[in-house]
Amino acid sequence: MTAPVTAAMIALADELAEAAAAIARRYFRTPVTVDTKADASPVSIADREAERAMRALIEARFPDHGIWGEEFGRVREGADFVWVLDPIDGTKAFLAGKPTFGVLVGLVWRNRPVYGVIEQPHLRERWAGGAGHATTLNGQPVRTRLCPALAQATLFATSPEMFGANLPAFERVRSRVRYPVWGCDCYAFGLVASGFADLAIEAGLSAYDWCALVPVVEAAGGVITDWQGQPLTPDSDGRVVAAGDSHLHGEVLRLLADG
Amino acid sequence: MTAPVTAAMIALADELAEAAAAIARRYFRTPVTVDTKADASPVSIADREAERAMRALIEARFPDHGIWGEEFGRVREGADFVWVLDPIDGTKAFLAGKPTFGVLVGLVWRNRPVYGVIEQPHLRERWAGGAGHATTLNGQPVRTRLCPALAQATLFATSPEMFGANLPAFERVRSRVRYPVWGCDCYAFGLVASGFADLAIEAGLSAYDWCALVPVVEAAGGVITDWQGQPLTPDSDGRVVAAGDSHLHGEVLRLLADG
Repeated sequence: MTAPVTAAMIALADELAEAAAAIARRYFRTPVTVDTKADASPVSIADREAERAMRALIEARFPDHGIWGEEFGRVREGADFVWVLDPIDGTKAFLAGKPTFGVLVGLVWRNRPVYGVIEQPHLRERWAGGAGHATTLNGQPVRTRLCPALAQATLFATSPEMFGANLPAFERVRSRVRYPVWGCDCYAFGLVASGFADLAIEAGLSAYDWCALVPVVEAAGGVITDWQGQPLTPDSDGRVVAAGDSHLHGEVLRLLADG
Repeated sequence: MTAPVTAAMIALADELAEAAAAIARRYFRTPVTVDTKADASPVSIADREAERAMRALIEARFPDHGIWGEEFGRVREGADFVWVLDPIDGTKAFLAGKPTFGVLVGLVWRNRPVYGVIEQPHLRERWAGGAGHATTLNGQPVRTRLCPALAQATLFATSPEMFGANLPAFERVRSRVRYPVWGCDCYAFGLVASGFADLAIEAGLSAYDWCALVPVVEAAGGVITDWQGQPLTPDSDGRVVAAGDSHLHGEVLRLLADG
């Protein structure tokens, strides 16, 4: 069954990204208050203010939809539609002045991510797609590229530390690609959707990290799953692999599994 | 003795960055021809065209100055003034569509880097400084920040692979900082100069990678040396450590040396 995503929901997704991006831009490269959360990740005033703004917009437009945000948790989890929000993905990059962080807006229908937005506020670049709409970057359609062999591939990953016990599996892929490129957070998935890179592999992510990425990559012609090749849902285990070329995706899954 | 850098040389440094940036922008995120050089690093049409444009400008203005460029080698090495050029630092990032690559222009006088420009073409961000001129970002003065302790520091490095045998030494620092952030190439040194981050540590660099960085970091109040704490010259060994706070720089040198 196709998700009954309406034009009003798609318009809201854009509006949420715009609202959060304006707040992120206001705080970017200024001294912001940084707290350390229970999981030792940094959270800033900008994160909180951006999520509050998005939540208020959703409550006003679709008061029966669920919301799941990184900073303020979940409401109406049982709703058919749930908005999964990361106000600032890549907070470390944000705090270091590096413009590869992003605002993530994912719309989930019956546990499936169906529409997504990745917004880079400083660059004013926005990928959006899903629910029958091909992915666009600032309104222009984008498409993943084919990659005939792993030895030709450009691979993005955010940091070696995030892999933990999964590092040997990741290394089996990294050691075989042409160019490993580090440190891109959600922005890497936009670059894969645009056909500038071939692979993005991450581990240790949370649902608000990937729910927006899935529709953006898929609606650009790519494949994005967990490391077992299963579809990503809000309950997945935090290991994500995206490929522009489905053949390459299969090859990478085999390498990740071959422990 | 103070280097006799003239206003015309400083104007030329800007002009070189502008010329190379325009070429980089033209090719960024388009399919470009990629060759692999002897050292397996990628080189694109954009690199070569940008360096040619910079060389022509130098030959026209200062025909007695030396030039040392990444793509086309050295001329007039014995000159007092030598322009050290990297048309696209971070070629892998450039080819992957990631806007953290940069144009590097370094002016070296009697083997000392005395003026530098770091330009990010896609973001149109340009750091410039040295020879008695405080570092600016797009014309606005910038300043490194103090960092009271390594445990508070944000650290940039481009990739774990580049460290090779130096990885254990680097890890002694990385494991003690608050936020390690990966994948920034020359842009990291601009962020340190601006006081958005505290440390940038690299290895395996070439002279055209660091000659531009040295004056930009120093004229913003920071310290940048090799891993032994020695001043960087075109003959240094490719291991670079920059800190916004000189006390932090000393602490990092001790950790890097303590093998």
